[in-house]
Amino acid sequence: MKILVTGGAGFIGTHLVRELLKRGHEVVVVDNFTLGKEENVNCFRDNSNYKFYNLDIAKGNEFWEALKEKKFDIVYHLAANSDIQKGSKNPSVDYNDTFMTTVNTLELMRRIGCKKLFFSSTSAVYGEKQELLSENIGDLKPISYYGGAKLASESFIQSYSFMNDFSTVIFRFPNVIGPNLTHGVIYDFIRKLQNNPNELEILGNGTQTKPYIYVFDLIDAIVKFTLDIDMLQGVEIYNAGVESATSVTTIADIVCEELGYKDVKYHYTGGNVGWKGDVPKFQYDLTKIHNVGWTASKTSDEAVRETVRYIKEHLNESSYNGWW
Amino acid sequence: MKILVTGGAGFIGTHLVRELLKRGHEVVVVDNFTLGKEENVNCFRDNSNYKFYNLDIAKGNEFWEALKEKKFDIVYHLAANSDIQKGSKNPSVDYNDTFMTTVNTLELMRRIGCKKLFFSSTSAVYGEKQELLSENIGDLKPISYYGGAKLASESFIQSYSFMNDFSTVIFRFPNVIGPNLTHGVIYDFIRKLQNNPNELEILGNGTQTKPYIYVFDLIDAIVKFTLDIDMLQGVEIYNAGVESATSVTTIADIVCEELGYKDVKYHYTGGNVGWKGDVPKFQYDLTKIHNVGWTASKTSDEAVRETVRYIKEHLNESSYNGWW
Repeated sequence: MKILVTGGAGFIGTHLVRELLKRGHEVVVVDNFTLGKEENVNCFRDNSNYKFYNLDIAKGNEFWEALKEKKFDIVYHLAANSDIQKGSKNPSVDYNDTFMTTVNTLELMRRIGCKKLFFSSTSAVYGEKQELLSENIGDLKPISYYGGAKLASESFIQSYSFMNDFSTVIFRFPNVIGPNLTHGVIYDFIRKLQNNPNELEILGNGTQTKPYIYVFDLIDAIVKFTLDIDMLQGVEIYNAGVESATSVTTIADIVCEELGYKDVKYHYTGGNVGWKGDVPKFQYDLTKIHNVGWTASKTSDEAVRETVRYIKEHLNESSYNGWW
Repeated sequence: MKILVTGGAGFIGTHLVRELLKRGHEVVVVDNFTLGKEENVNCFRDNSNYKFYNLDIAKGNEFWEALKEKKFDIVYHLAANSDIQKGSKNPSVDYNDTFMTTVNTLELMRRIGCKKLFFSSTSAVYGEKQELLSENIGDLKPISYYGGAKLASESFIQSYSFMNDFSTVIFRFPNVIGPNLTHGVIYDFIRKLQNNPNELEILGNGTQTKPYIYVFDLIDAIVKFTLDIDMLQGVEIYNAGVESATSVTTIADIVCEELGYKDVKYHYTGGNVGWKGDVPKFQYDLTKIHNVGWTASKTSDEAVRETVRYIKEHLNESSYNGWW
């Protein structure tokens, strides 16, 4: 199959591209290296099934012009700002990188007649809800520009899919971690501990508790729901997550344990959120995705530990270019 | 109060501006006469509390620059494409006129520090649902670019409202009719009957049945919920509608009856929708808005009849400039 992966040089995109190439597909990647990294995709360069475009998808005309002759069987649209905290300081970040990239991808599909779409949405579309999050609960009130831009993207996807007979799968991702991660709490803790091994500043009160999925579990689900299972016309939304969840303090504990930092004094900044727009706690209802026959192989705590171990193994490699 | 009305030269906007000026407020109108008409607002020109800007809000920089020194107590954001059928042929219509106008209005509010917003949303955000539409049902799948753009607008409004402490009221309008209407089924029927008084082509099978609200009932509700009742921080969404509904065939009957066309042969194009993206039937759950103490004064059928009568009275006026 001929496949377009937007954001294919990013954290999740790279792992997806590797899997798609492994399966023998032709893969076109579009990325502008905002969060994606050239080093992530260098390894694919010699594969004749791989082609790369350095383009900002938010600039529609350039993007449409470059790909107007292409025939894609399916588009995986992963390009987005994924740093919620960064976007909270300036709404144009998520407007451009999260929302405009989506509208322009939909418009490309309409123009070139591509009918299959995978979209990476997020738990942030739900906002701050007390109940278990099931896909069809209503009254969604995203509290970050990122969540608003993703929910707005879902809205445009609904109307484009109906008007143009797309078959669309939307995954609402929880926190995703693993090799090549570019930012987030694990990243912050390790950097802070490298600077000061005795004390660790933790944003909020440490009780913020979210599910963390290991990136290879997520790739497994994406490929299963878009290639192994027939995609049906219309839009299907799935919470793609793990049943368990990990608190910020537990993450700190795992980081200290795995990296050998002892007697670290935790200093909490206080309050129940890390920053304005942060959703402190959530848990998915996973009935829908489990019913199709997919379950994550690792718990949230295991995903955190595995990620920390991966970093530890690569910390002293002179060629290590994943994280910092 | 100092008030901004976007789309203030449009069908609903004009009536709102008149009411706000009558109450003694200072009103700034921004409109680019895409659907709005200069004749609609000419009557306000001599009012020293009224100021008009001819601007396309979808062009953010021009809009922000023109109003950057203004202090508004509240913004009524009505600017939008309201012709769903027109937008179904080209997604850029609703992208620009319905969605971009909203994002740019939110960004203006953030920049100048305005904290109160009224937004005109639509029943089209619900898509095609079988159940009674209550504000908090989930799994919304808009089937028109217009509905997608309005739901995406609501998503951005949620995140902007949270991040910037706005007090926001969203009304989801049903079909709105009355003096100054610019398009829609009543308009089409009268034009067709003027061309051929013996036969009337009806899109679909005539059973499409929707609630029609009289524009003055809607203005009454808008003013009540934004000026007479204190707006609370956060976003409140209301279905602003009437309990009853009118079928397309009934509209044809009322038009023929009121305009004196007899023995008209109806020719149905068939199918249960007028065009792709049309929602053939819906009915609102109005519990929430009724509980605050507001109910429409006219039924849907009465609103249709009143609108047809208004047109009849003005059909032979040489100065009539409302409709065509």
